[in-house]
Amino acid sequence: MSVTAARGFRASGVAAGLKSAGALDVALVVNDGPDAGVAGVFTANRVKAAPVLWTQQVVHGGVARAVILNSGGANACTGPAGFQDTHATAEHTAAVLTSTNARLMVGAGDVAVCSTGLIGERLPMDKLLPGVRGAARDLSRSGGPAAAEAIMTTDSRPKTTVVDGGGWTVGGMAKGAGMLSPALATMLCVLTTDAVAGPEALDAALRAACRVTFDRLDSDGAMSTNDTVLLLASGASGLEPTRAELTAAVTAACHDLAQQLLADAEGATKQVAIEVVGAASEDDAVEVGRAVARNNLVKTALFGNDPNWGRILAAVGTTAAVFEADDLDVAVNGIWVCRSGAAAEDRSKVDLSGRDVTVRIDLHAGTAQATVWTNDLSHAYVHENSAYST
Amino acid sequence: MSVTAARGFRASGVAAGLKSAGALDVALVVNDGPDAGVAGVFTANRVKAAPVLWTQQVVHGGVARAVILNSGGANACTGPAGFQDTHATAEHTAAVLTSTNARLMVGAGDVAVCSTGLIGERLPMDKLLPGVRGAARDLSRSGGPAAAEAIMTTDSRPKTTVVDGGGWTVGGMAKGAGMLSPALATMLCVLTTDAVAGPEALDAALRAACRVTFDRLDSDGAMSTNDTVLLLASGASGLEPTRAELTAAVTAACHDLAQQLLADAEGATKQVAIEVVGAASEDDAVEVGRAVARNNLVKTALFGNDPNWGRILAAVGTTAAVFEADDLDVAVNGIWVCRSGAAAEDRSKVDLSGRDVTVRIDLHAGTAQATVWTNDLSHAYVHENSAYST
Repeated sequence: MSVTAARGFRASGVAAGLKSAGALDVALVVNDGPDAGVAGVFTANRVKAAPVLWTQQVVHGGVARAVILNSGGANACTGPAGFQDTHATAEHTAAVLTSTNARLMVGAGDVAVCSTGLIGERLPMDKLLPGVRGAARDLSRSGGPAAAEAIMTTDSRPKTTVVDGGGWTVGGMAKGAGMLSPALATMLCVLTTDAVAGPEALDAALRAACRVTFDRLDSDGAMSTNDTVLLLASGASGLEPTRAELTAAVTAACHDLAQQLLADAEGATKQVAIEVVGAASEDDAVEVGRAVARNNLVKTALFGNDPNWGRILAAVGTTAAVFEADDLDVAVNGIWVCRSGAAAEDRSKVDLSGRDVTVRIDLHAGTAQATVWTNDLSHAYVHENSAYST
Repeated sequence: MSVTAARGFRASGVAAGLKSAGALDVALVVNDGPDAGVAGVFTANRVKAAPVLWTQQVVHGGVARAVILNSGGANACTGPAGFQDTHATAEHTAAVLTSTNARLMVGAGDVAVCSTGLIGERLPMDKLLPGVRGAARDLSRSGGPAAAEAIMTTDSRPKTTVVDGGGWTVGGMAKGAGMLSPALATMLCVLTTDAVAGPEALDAALRAACRVTFDRLDSDGAMSTNDTVLLLASGASGLEPTRAELTAAVTAACHDLAQQLLADAEGATKQVAIEVVGAASEDDAVEVGRAVARNNLVKTALFGNDPNWGRILAAVGTTAAVFEADDLDVAVNGIWVCRSGAAAEDRSKVDLSGRDVTVRIDLHAGTAQATVWTNDLSHAYVHENSAYST
């Protein structure tokens, strides 16, 4: 049920002609309230798409009545004219919702905007604005799946989640199939809840959740211009969870969606968990995990079913984490192929025939730990990313 | 003539059986003096191979009479036993040279050791030590090319250079075909000169040269455990260049070898120069160049002959360099496809059919500039690096 699992939300997905072949490409999520709190986490890229710049302002105000999303164009690197397009989309959405929904008085400043697709090209507004009107017309309590489908780009399938909080719910949808990187990556995610929660509580829960889920997904080290994760609360359940309860549910929803993104990464043949243990600090563990996750030689080795622990050690050695090179242990799928920085168990015992791979690195420098998720680097990755815009 | 172009040096390359099929795999370079100054630059990786740890000590003393090099094994991540192997190799080299050359009194501490090949496996000392003896027997003033061939791994051809200083010479050889990254990368380089120059002058010249050549080569972002660049001076010309003259000649030699490494990078179809101009500082320019050079989405786009400037902007946006996103200009092979952060000249005008690509990025934030060199990310890169150890 995606974003419409939580009470108080309607959604839709329509085909506006931004993508070819009649695919759904405009999604609308509306919060009917009674509350309209919102929190957001955005790409750390300094080159931010117009919809990110716009939506940061909306979230800053703490209130959002609707989110309008499009695939088929990122509206990034489009200059002042691109920002005007985003502004016009929000205004049009607000006007259409106000005119067709007696209950709703929506201003442009209450409308978050998300875009995904190619960078550097203007959106075809002559198609997008009629699409917004169609999306408003199609809004329904069962529109979650259509919305999730409409935000797909190279995704092979829609990603949705539902977490039961006990009388209140967190629902969500996400898109993304590559460029998954720190501070998110070409991914959009809209989470909804019918819990009673103010913007501050939403912000705290969302940041805590993203820190250990989307932010530790590092598919190819590239950081997008458009990444946006939004959390909207309707309060329709009348129940106010504790901050811990809200954080736990939002984290579970983000974790579920993050794993779906990982599983659908462009051209990947492996899902790899880099578990770093024995670290002096969690930051150290994340730094080491990220360095290994981003190392093309490690990633190509995994594609080749090669438990090449030497490349893993070389990647660890590029970090500033606390460790001694002679203390490092590495296990690949449970086989400790490296102990004390040198060869240990027979590498031929490592079974890499499956899709799931676990690399465990013990720094022997403390008790902190963290897991970073990544993919292998395959022929298909090169193919998809060398042909994407042509 | 490689390392034997400068007077005072002999070299050799022999087949010791470390590589299969009788390929040359042990190289020896001997400095017959009268001087024996040495300087070195090593990998910044904290996981350093045994020969790097050893040779750092040799260089610290400022004197080296010989360099013994092997391909067919990196002797990295081999623990204390691996270090003993390096030590034994140096001792054996010293003993053989002393016994066969009346002029030379060589101690193990005067012998630099370099190894390259697979990580994590012990060297077959029963083959290597006889190889050292054979290399000593074959030493000659014309042995430079054989030495350059003996250090190759996945290189498709040997890399040598000669720079004429005017009465004195800098010669050199290098190996490397991937993992070219900051602070060098799986590369070995031995430079020789017959100029009169003490260890301090050699060190200053070598560091200055590496900073703008090898250190700005970033083929795949991976940093090796074995990178070593050595500069040996025999003083045999009797001429003492100024520091500026020495630095210029060493830089020219390093630049020539670096470009040969770039041209031979594993599986690459493009040689890409990322020229960053208008930077607030040289550090900013290097940071931006490196971020673009390491971005897999930029690299796959170039492999696909796609002038995807949006991905270039997204890569620039991940840096902390001084710039405003709305000021960025990008040219690909001379066509300014992006001006002021948005689309400009028609991208179809960009000709990417050749092997050489120039990406020029103007940050409009100052007058500093730097160039970083990289390669594209191709199917062949994935193939070679997924199959290397199996």
